[in-house]
Amino acid sequence: MINPNSNEAVTEGLRQAVLPLSYAEGPEIVCETLTEGPFGVETQEHAESVTIPLRRKVEAANDVDAFVIACYSDPGLHVAREGTTSPVFGIAESGVLTALARADRFGVIAIKTRSIPRHIRYLRQMGLMDRLAGERPLEMSVAETASGDRTLERMIAIGRELKDKDGAGAIVMGCAGMARHRRPLELELGIPVIDPTQAAVAMAIGTIAVR
Amino acid sequence: MINPNSNEAVTEGLRQAVLPLSYAEGPEIVCETLTEGPFGVETQEHAESVTIPLRRKVEAANDVDAFVIACYSDPGLHVAREGTTSPVFGIAESGVLTALARADRFGVIAIKTRSIPRHIRYLRQMGLMDRLAGERPLEMSVAETASGDRTLERMIAIGRELKDKDGAGAIVMGCAGMARHRRPLELELGIPVIDPTQAAVAMAIGTIAVR
Amino acid sequence: MINPNSNEAVTEGLRQAVLPLSYAEGPEIVCETLTEGPFGVETQEHAESVTIPLRRKVEAANDVDAFVIACYSDPGLHVAREGTTSPVFGIAESGVLTALARADRFGVIAIKTRSIPRHIRYLRQMGLMDRLAGERPLEMSVAETASGDRTLERMIAIGRELKDKDGAGAIVMGCAGMARHRRPLELELGIPVIDPTQAAVAMAIGTIAVR
Amino acid sequence: MINPNSNEAVTEGLRQAVLPLSYAEGPEIVCETLTEGPFGVETQEHAESVTIPLRRKVEAANDVDAFVIACYSDPGLHVAREGTTSPVFGIAESGVLTALARADRFGVIAIKTRSIPRHIRYLRQMGLMDRLAGERPLEMSVAETASGDRTLERMIAIGRELKDKDGAGAIVMGCAGMARHRRPLELELGIPVIDPTQAAVAMAIGTIAVR
Amino acid sequence: MINPNSNEAVTEGLRQAVLPLSYAEGPEIVCETLTEGPFGVETQEHAESVTIPLRRKVEAANDVDAFVIACYSDPGLHVAREGTTSPVFGIAESGVLTALARADRFGVIAIKTRSIPRHIRYLRQMGLMDRLAGERPLEMSVAETASGDRTLERMIAIGRELKDKDGAGAIVMGCAGMARHRRPLELELGIPVIDPTQAAVAMAIGTIAVR
Amino acid sequence: MINPNSNEAVTEGLRQAVLPLSYAEGPEIVCETLTEGPFGVETQEHAESVTIPLRRKVEAANDVDAFVIACYSDPGLHVAREGTTSPVFGIAESGVLTALARADRFGVIAIKTRSIPRHIRYLRQMGLMDRLAGERPLEMSVAETASGDRTLERMIAIGRELKDKDGAGAIVMGCAGMARHRRPLELELGIPVIDPTQAAVAMAIGTIAVR
Repeated sequence: MINPNSNEAVTEGLRQAVLPLSYAEGPEIVCETLTEGPFGVETQEHAESVTIPLRRKVEAANDVDAFVIACYSDPGLHVAREGTTSPVFGIAESGVLTALARADRFGVIAIKTRSIPRHIRYLRQMGLMDRLAGERPLEMSVAETASGDRTLERMIAIGRELKDKDGAGAIVMGCAGMARHRRPLELELGIPVIDPTQAAVAMAIGTIAVR
Repeated sequence: MINPNSNEAVTEGLRQAVLPLSYAEGPEIVCETLTEGPFGVETQEHAESVTIPLRRKVEAANDVDAFVIACYSDPGLHVAREGTTSPVFGIAESGVLTALARADRFGVIAIKTRSIPRHIRYLRQMGLMDRLAGERPLEMSVAETASGDRTLERMIAIGRELKDKDGAGAIVMGCAGMARHRRPLELELGIPVIDPTQAAVAMAIGTIAVR
Repeated sequence: MINPNSNEAVTEGLRQAVLPLSYAEGPEIVCETLTEGPFGVETQEHAESVTIPLRRKVEAANDVDAFVIACYSDPGLHVAREGTTSPVFGIAESGVLTALARADRFGVIAIKTRSIPRHIRYLRQMGLMDRLAGERPLEMSVAETASGDRTLERMIAIGRELKDKDGAGAIVMGCAGMARHRRPLELELGIPVIDPTQAAVAMAIGTIAVR
Repeated sequence: MINPNSNEAVTEGLRQAVLPLSYAEGPEIVCETLTEGPFGVETQEHAESVTIPLRRKVEAANDVDAFVIACYSDPGLHVAREGTTSPVFGIAESGVLTALARADRFGVIAIKTRSIPRHIRYLRQMGLMDRLAGERPLEMSVAETASGDRTLERMIAIGRELKDKDGAGAIVMGCAGMARHRRPLELELGIPVIDPTQAAVAMAIGTIAVR
Repeated sequence: MINPNSNEAVTEGLRQAVLPLSYAEGPEIVCETLTEGPFGVETQEHAESVTIPLRRKVEAANDVDAFVIACYSDPGLHVAREGTTSPVFGIAESGVLTALARADRFGVIAIKTRSIPRHIRYLRQMGLMDRLAGERPLEMSVAETASGDRTLERMIAIGRELKDKDGAGAIVMGCAGMARHRRPLELELGIPVIDPTQAAVAMAIGTIAVR
Repeated sequence: MINPNSNEAVTEGLRQAVLPLSYAEGPEIVCETLTEGPFGVETQEHAESVTIPLRRKVEAANDVDAFVIACYSDPGLHVAREGTTSPVFGIAESGVLTALARADRFGVIAIKTRSIPRHIRYLRQMGLMDRLAGERPLEMSVAETASGDRTLERMIAIGRELKDKDGAGAIVMGCAGMARHRRPLELELGIPVIDPTQAAVAMAIGTIAVR
């Protein structure tokens, strides 16, 4: 699993997020930081700036059975796939697909309003718009999201809007670093909440196991 | 995992199929036969006849963390979901969603021509028709499919048509009992081949692990 | 016409609803109650529980020229079709198709919120979502709907929202037992209102007449 | 029912086609010829040339309970609707909607190749493309279609292609004057065949009956 | 460029609108009034009434390299195309297509509420509904729109709703006579605003230039 | 107009292609080569490798009124748009949108089979799949395409298949360097043929002119 941003704290969060999926007999899950990446992937420029570095990292990793790109914009997904015979999973794609196995229509919690057009464009590319109930932003600063409690509180409020106003039957957390809020959010909302990094790793494990 | 048909040999095949996903620290995977089911689910009547028995079985299984309904028509999926707070996965849904994480457009190998309208209707219900490259039938009798070699040979021929004529980038095996052919078929075709029972169990494990 | 619930009062209402379509030279319209059915079809379990009994009833009725399943979830429609060479009409399907001949986009009045996801899933299966303006619930108890005046009042309010807020140009009454409200509702709203049982019977008559 | 072309023989064919739907207690069905119309509606110009004359005819007919425009291009449908409070049915729309109540995907038999883009554009306008299996032309001259036997023979051949190659489960005859071939074609193909004029009249009767 | 209504002031507005696209070496842009047209195209009847006159005008203009029909309902577009080998552009079609080159989702400012269903039907015919953010009406009388200032003020208010509430990234002015407001509206809203007559002429010039 | 590959001959071809759109009073059209680019953009890696260099070039060009990215994969389109307040046009997007103003369904001539999935994915992202008749590859080597005559011959053959087998009413040349074949191809096929670089420049000129 590659964290395309250079924030090592995010990578550590990924390690915690996928710990429950680490089985002694299963594949080893290694979370790495893309040191060339920006501190956070917030713009289209950030997303584009990591695609070739991700490709290089994938090409250099000869003995990896599957890759996960851990950014909700799935940057470099197709170029990484072109560079390896191992499967490559994007967390946005995996998160949404996993939500579709849990409810008829899903909602997405985005960090910022400005990411939503990019996400919608990507959902349209995936041909999955008919199942989208809605996407709503937390609209919090990075500093604010760092403080856990206020973030959870805000996610619950946004999640309720997605459920009650938009008719979402499941929620995808539209960011790589929110896994610790998944369980409390699910308990509050009463509908499935998907952490996309966990969803992608589960798919990767399933693929590796049956080779 | 519940086999909705009463053919115990199919259930034994399921056990073999998901063996690679059984981890000592992971959830125990139990494959059961729906004794009330028909010997095979080949018609709409067969599919409808198992929905309420599946619901009863799900309701009675209080300590199960996740269910998988192991028939490519996903019979009773929604009524089973209504009867439990645990997640319920259908193998057709999971198989197709997993294929979407591997290629832009997927093909389906059906056993019989007559199943295809039912599958198409279901894909339309899931809103996933835009990603379907095509579905083609083996058109083999049950007796013929029982003999492994001829089946694999036929699957390779059909898989090649899906890949070369229809443009499929991944193949979903549209039946519960074909897992042993997955790997040889994938090697022959050179594109990912998804066994839907394995795909559903991987999704179930991923859901259970992160509770 | 088969009422899949065991509420004989609903069946009697169906008889009244289709009386205007009974011509001396036309086909005889017989409304029967599925005695094995639940008192009302309100859940997925209710819907699934009647599919095989409906199939049996259809198979046993050898001299029937066309069948209508009179429940807005169209339970057992496909399995009934598989069991007879006579055409089988579902009232939800017929009601929506008839609305499409009257306006560009249609609205649906549902009894309860919880039916809406099931209806949406079915509309997606039919490939008709692009024409849906919206679906809104009466959210009344069975006891309340039994009292006609309050029901009509509520239907008018909901119908106005579908017309004015959602842009519906025609309304489908999303239930088998509302035919007596059709005309007053249409007069109040000023747009076509479709009773789905009447729509299905009209289609059935048209099919039988031209054999 | 208005025949937008000035060919009185076609109007006479319409009268025969809807005879089975004429009930003593039902609405009187009057078939009229649009004398201003072209001898046949074969081009976009033909279709556009009849829209205002149809509007005038509809406006002048104050005591008509419902109108049917009997040309498979549904010329003037929306402008006619704007000019009357009575419902107006187009045979293409009604024919396709009726086919959707009989099978998952339908095929259309067109007279000429050059009509197909116009029909496809119209199906897209109706939002019904997801249910189209295919449209294929007879490619016969008017003189040839006048001779019944060769026409039926050709319709059977085209119908078989729609059924076997395109997967159509029902056939719509894409022309106003083919009703007499409906039954023999249906018997040959073994799937429902819809005459669009009969479909539209059945919908009109159903609407009038329940006022 | 043909103004299908007989209001010469509108034609004069068109001349002003396309002045910036008149190059000495480029094609001469001639704006003509359809004298047979209604004073304004506000109803379906108005739209249908000009189709054959437009066809005649196009047929008579033998030395014209490209035609533009300057009414946001694109009346007679297909029948005009059938009558000439020169390309024919409709301003609604060109305006929307040009907006798609500027933003992911577009909004439309309509003059009146009653035009919106007609526009939606047309967008569905073009297969472009997935990119529509919303359409909202000015709901002004002709007299009111004649007074420029109030019109601009109202367009800004409606444009803000399309941008902020519906998520439009570009705006199409849904009328032929608003070009003088394009620039100020764009400056106020901060997103691209498309005048459809200018968009159509630009496409026409591009087509002529490369012959 | 920026040629994202480093092949100066292609850039020279672009200059010739857009010469007919250079008006003395119009905007100056400058065609530049992205010197950092690969010799040709044939893979996803090639496409991704030019996105950030294109962004830098766009950011550095302060006095440019509009940009055109001249590669049929539209690499870096969104990241370039994020980096400038001037409009940025991609030739694939502009070419397809322009084709939609000429015919109901369009076909695309690709150079290589392997580009087709990338193009399909992009068409799905644009929400324009409903208008695609088909895409077919020339399947020629770079050396072969360099020789003009054989290329045109092959394009005519492929164009005929798109027109006759797939039903395309217009053709988009799916490459930046084919402009010289546009006119002869159009004459041979008898339907509009769009050179995407000319289409994009026409849109850019239209946008600049009306500022």
